[in-house]
Amino acid sequence: MSKLDDIVSLCKRRGFIFPGSDIYGGFAGTWDFGPLGVTLKKKIMDEWWHYFVESRDDMYGVDAAIIMNPRTWVASGHLATFADPLVECKECKSRFRADKIADGITESVTTEEFLDTHTKCPVCGKENWGPIRKFNMMFTTHVGAVLPDDDAETTSKNLAYLRPETAQGIFTNYKNIIDTIYPDIPFGLAQQGKAFRNEISPRDFILRDRECSQMEIEYFVAPDTWEENFEKMRALQHEFLEKIIKLPADKLHEYEVPAEDRAHYSKRTIDFMFDYPNGEEELMGLAYRTDFDLQNIARESGKSMEYRDKKINETFVPHVIEPSIGVERLMLAVLSTAYTEDEVGGEKRIVLKLPENLAPYRFCVSPLLKNKPELVEKARNVYQKLRDKYVNVTWDDSGNIGKRYRKQDEIGTPKCIVIDFDTLEDDTVTIRDRDTTEQIRVKISEL
Amino acid sequence: MSKLDDIVSLCKRRGFIFPGSDIYGGFAGTWDFGPLGVTLKKKIMDEWWHYFVESRDDMYGVDAAIIMNPRTWVASGHLATFADPLVECKECKSRFRADKIADGITESVTTEEFLDTHTKCPVCGKENWGPIRKFNMMFTTHVGAVLPDDDAETTSKNLAYLRPETAQGIFTNYKNIIDTIYPDIPFGLAQQGKAFRNEISPRDFILRDRECSQMEIEYFVAPDTWEENFEKMRALQHEFLEKIIKLPADKLHEYEVPAEDRAHYSKRTIDFMFDYPNGEEELMGLAYRTDFDLQNIARESGKSMEYRDKKINETFVPHVIEPSIGVERLMLAVLSTAYTEDEVGGEKRIVLKLPENLAPYRFCVSPLLKNKPELVEKARNVYQKLRDKYVNVTWDDSGNIGKRYRKQDEIGTPKCIVIDFDTLEDDTVTIRDRDTTEQIRVKISEL
Repeated sequence: MSKLDDIVSLCKRRGFIFPGSDIYGGFAGTWDFGPLGVTLKKKIMDEWWHYFVESRDDMYGVDAAIIMNPRTWVASGHLATFADPLVECKECKSRFRADKIADGITESVTTEEFLDTHTKCPVCGKENWGPIRKFNMMFTTHVGAVLPDDDAETTSKNLAYLRPETAQGIFTNYKNIIDTIYPDIPFGLAQQGKAFRNEISPRDFILRDRECSQMEIEYFVAPDTWEENFEKMRALQHEFLEKIIKLPADKLHEYEVPAEDRAHYSKRTIDFMFDYPNGEEELMGLAYRTDFDLQNIARESGKSMEYRDKKINETFVPHVIEPSIGVERLMLAVLSTAYTEDEVGGEKRIVLKLPENLAPYRFCVSPLLKNKPELVEKARNVYQKLRDKYVNVTWDDSGNIGKRYRKQDEIGTPKCIVIDFDTLEDDTVTIRDRDTTEQIRVKISEL
Repeated sequence: MSKLDDIVSLCKRRGFIFPGSDIYGGFAGTWDFGPLGVTLKKKIMDEWWHYFVESRDDMYGVDAAIIMNPRTWVASGHLATFADPLVECKECKSRFRADKIADGITESVTTEEFLDTHTKCPVCGKENWGPIRKFNMMFTTHVGAVLPDDDAETTSKNLAYLRPETAQGIFTNYKNIIDTIYPDIPFGLAQQGKAFRNEISPRDFILRDRECSQMEIEYFVAPDTWEENFEKMRALQHEFLEKIIKLPADKLHEYEVPAEDRAHYSKRTIDFMFDYPNGEEELMGLAYRTDFDLQNIARESGKSMEYRDKKINETFVPHVIEPSIGVERLMLAVLSTAYTEDEVGGEKRIVLKLPENLAPYRFCVSPLLKNKPELVEKARNVYQKLRDKYVNVTWDDSGNIGKRYRKQDEIGTPKCIVIDFDTLEDDTVTIRDRDTTEQIRVKISEL
């Protein structure tokens, strides 16, 4: 088993992450979060919101609908260009993303280039391919009273899309926001929410799923200040990832995307790469998007996107710096950093060394023995005291104490507090540290 | 203007809630939350999560995907029965929900019954109707590499739905959860997340929208304990709505749904009705769902949904009590309770009397005059001190002090703190109360 498989297995075994619709054999590219996964995900999202929005004077929240007016995707260019190269095996009718089954080609591969790679069908082994076709990754739906026997025109009039990114939900609200809360420039609009991409071949656990949670900021700046603001946003991302989320700096690599690989509207893009168990993959992106999106919206809507800067008495369309991160990608970075196998007392141990601010539970409280009412009662008191103070405290009286430690190690609980017979004498408890397995004796009043 | 119109207007003017895709003329049934709306929504959702999940030992979180295996909706009955009666005007082709345009009929209306009402088309005024047809309210989509020219069979094989409720995302995860965290019965699984309903005629602001955020709990109990647990959940809902969210008890009415109007699987349902500006409407529901959902899933999946109760050494399929509430419905109850028009100093005032725990900002800090650097500097110090402590603090130095008060009243900020020339002398500030408009003088050190 690869390390990624080990993590997938732990996540399922301990109630972090289950395959989506698992009871019906799953549903490709979807994942469900169990009790511990919900807590970890919520803590990551709350840390982001607190760091980038609540604790800053220049950031404001937005929460737009997932199904937007389809003109959004005309203006943004997604309808025309948000597509993957699809290729079909003429023998077995299997469909693939061409650039994922052949080496040395990119997303803009032509049919000729693909045929030149002499790739065999991963399913039937034959080499008999149809042409490369562009497959738009936006999920479609129909809004309003459309019936199955309606004609094509009626049906297509009601066609809409699930948003493939949260960013456009920010750009389309830009004007309403500047007209209601009058923010001083530079300012950022931040959104957390679901985005959907109909991946041809979802894979790598939660790294390439069809439904993900994004956290995006569009940071609006005066055009001639983009470079200093880009650097400011870049520094903030590092501080968030390394100081708050505590990802190791040596697993984080900046990749300066060269001009020929950048989106045509971007003058600078840095991909933040992370050393995942299966290799280096994009964790997040930081892009200078110029005024591309606001100008598109101005054209499509016929409305002015100009911002009036009272300080310098000038009017301009702001330029935008965009830090964009997927919650699940960040969660996998956290989980794979924390996942550790070591040996304790001659036995193999799995331990999730999560930072204290992200661990689903900060403390586990246990009576040494379950069948001694005086221990249980004392332990319940300690549990309730800590719970009132810290919220994230768990109770565990299952199995023996060794089994409980193993379980708490696997779910990443930093400290286990055990109430034993000495506690009844001197009001001290054992605190056992997850990472070192060392135990110390502490007065209950000092907890 | 009705009171609801006044609230809609305030929400847009102050950045709480905008029509979805407003820049493109909107998109029926969708709403976007601006900076203040995001904060209010988040506070409501966080209070719910804290009250029902974090502060309890018997509740656990779940967060399932929005697009689920379609067998989910076969098992749950949504594919067969989650439909509204659609009627089309043969003259102008407009489509309506039959029970919404005619009086005295229900959702199960037949064509004959509808024709008997002699309803005129609300658009063209004629009376020439087609038959009643069942319109399924689930949004459809296609998952995987489906191309526009694929045949109907390929296309329908990939048909999937946006979940119309979060509940089924809990039921489908029930087995994985009991097999991983072994909760003691009774226990609840709680979820917050988006749900989608393709309403034929969305209306009443955020009360009947196509995309909403739900907060649902499935509370699993031993079959013969359902009545006591129903009462327990009922008391918890009242405490949450009245003590935490501070809705006035006299605007909240329990409606005991009579047997003939209940879903066929429910043995008891209470609708919690609220006096909204446009009349009494459902705020939330509390339903005893028996073992209907788990038995359906057992049948469809072929897997056992039995729970083994170690305490009494018995095995059974749990029964379920479900409290279910829509975030937007709750938000509108909060906003319409808070919205007040009164008179201050002979002038009409609009004030949002939000409870302190829900107000987007708890304090607003202002210098009396913007052009006096010594006042601004002192005010900035006070602002920073409060912000470090409370997070939700806003700064306002726009216009004159009267205008600022009016603005903070409209966005529901409970206290405005003003730094004036006396502050420089004696380190006291003015605190002005939103509801009484009374001002008191307090030492900065006592804030």
